[in-house]
Amino acid sequence: MAYEELMIEGRNAVIEAFRSGKTIDKIYILDGCQDGPMATIRREAKKHDTIIKYVDKERLDQMSSTGKHQGVIASAAAYSYVEVEDILENARKKNEDPFIFILDGIEDPHNLGAIIRTANLAGAHGVVIPKNRAVGLTATVARTSAGALNYTPVAKVTNLSKTIEELKKEGLWFVCADMDGTKMYDLNLKGAIGLVIGNEGEGVSRLVKEKCDMTAAIPMKGDIDSLNASVAAGVLAYEIVRQRFN
Amino acid sequence: MAYEELMIEGRNAVIEAFRSGKTIDKIYILDGCQDGPMATIRREAKKHDTIIKYVDKERLDQMSSTGKHQGVIASAAAYSYVEVEDILENARKKNEDPFIFILDGIEDPHNLGAIIRTANLAGAHGVVIPKNRAVGLTATVARTSAGALNYTPVAKVTNLSKTIEELKKEGLWFVCADMDGTKMYDLNLKGAIGLVIGNEGEGVSRLVKEKCDMTAAIPMKGDIDSLNASVAAGVLAYEIVRQRFN
Repeated sequence: MAYEELMIEGRNAVIEAFRSGKTIDKIYILDGCQDGPMATIRREAKKHDTIIKYVDKERLDQMSSTGKHQGVIASAAAYSYVEVEDILENARKKNEDPFIFILDGIEDPHNLGAIIRTANLAGAHGVVIPKNRAVGLTATVARTSAGALNYTPVAKVTNLSKTIEELKKEGLWFVCADMDGTKMYDLNLKGAIGLVIGNEGEGVSRLVKEKCDMTAAIPMKGDIDSLNASVAAGVLAYEIVRQRFN
Repeated sequence: MAYEELMIEGRNAVIEAFRSGKTIDKIYILDGCQDGPMATIRREAKKHDTIIKYVDKERLDQMSSTGKHQGVIASAAAYSYVEVEDILENARKKNEDPFIFILDGIEDPHNLGAIIRTANLAGAHGVVIPKNRAVGLTATVARTSAGALNYTPVAKVTNLSKTIEELKKEGLWFVCADMDGTKMYDLNLKGAIGLVIGNEGEGVSRLVKEKCDMTAAIPMKGDIDSLNASVAAGVLAYEIVRQRFN
């Protein structure tokens, strides 16, 4: 996963970057600058959970490479998505059975970051997320992933069911989490595997569930309904780790 | 765990409630009210992640029981802490070996909420947190716990090491998480057990670690340092569940 820092200078360029959905980590604004475009930039920054730093003109001049910063410079982290094929290639290079996380609509950036972190440490070769109804690789996700985003590749696909079908042809088995499933300790989770994690509120969608070979239940001994999505992903991932590496 | 809603009326009472560290879920402010004390209340609300609702005078008058709301009413959730003895009693009543989470300085309310949620579903009898250098039962914790706070008792103690000593006399064994420990699958985690989870950045403190009987390592197959604290707690808790109930 390529990680490179992009500096974007000037008011319109920064506003445009926000609106195009680019991940902006931090913006540097000339202290005391209060006009209309700057208010728009601050509003966008707030909306996107971007850190704002107020600096003096000297600092901005130093940072600028164009000499035309107009009082604002944004620092964007350019995380590039990979193709699903690259994830398989990652497994091949390590000479390991593929282990892929499929996230069916995770909406909370803290959950997505924590899950990418877990995927990295559980030895997964990559993460697949859908284009729609899900959070992408925002600055919050990058921060919450604690650096995992620099190592664990993430692919973004239009149709998760289709991706699962294609990965089945590569020999992967798919397991999704659901309370009505078989107790996870009783399933065979060895070999090439895709772990499907559902949306925070609604779980795994019907179409995706129908494509799965196994449904795993995490034992629930308490009073409430479900674990936090990133905790559930961690618990399932480590049951796979236990079976895979022991 | 008792859950009762307290309504606090009037400017000074609300400001005082914030400053005393009370958990305020929501405040209702008279729409258009802009004076100094109200600005203070809004600032405190922002600092404590409290939801603000702007309402009209009629609504406030209806909600008021004192008739002296002065334009502001706060709704506070009163979660009461229990004693460690109550957690042991909880296990006794269920005729189960005690299973207690000991949190050594969790600072992020989202992590604390997620861990209480995990404790509930893993069948733990309670959670112990320290008085200092740790987040308490704030509104965010309550929200993130997804209701678990109403079922899983939380005790707040001055000295974790001392509490561990006392619980050892009750027959509990203590396991803490650390990378240098024994692989968790190879430890015997059955019976009366305390699971010790460390601070997000620094892990388990030295004094607490010295009191633990076992150190469990979660296998790390990746590039980064550590799992998110609530994910690590979930993975360890479910290794205990696997050994305990299978």
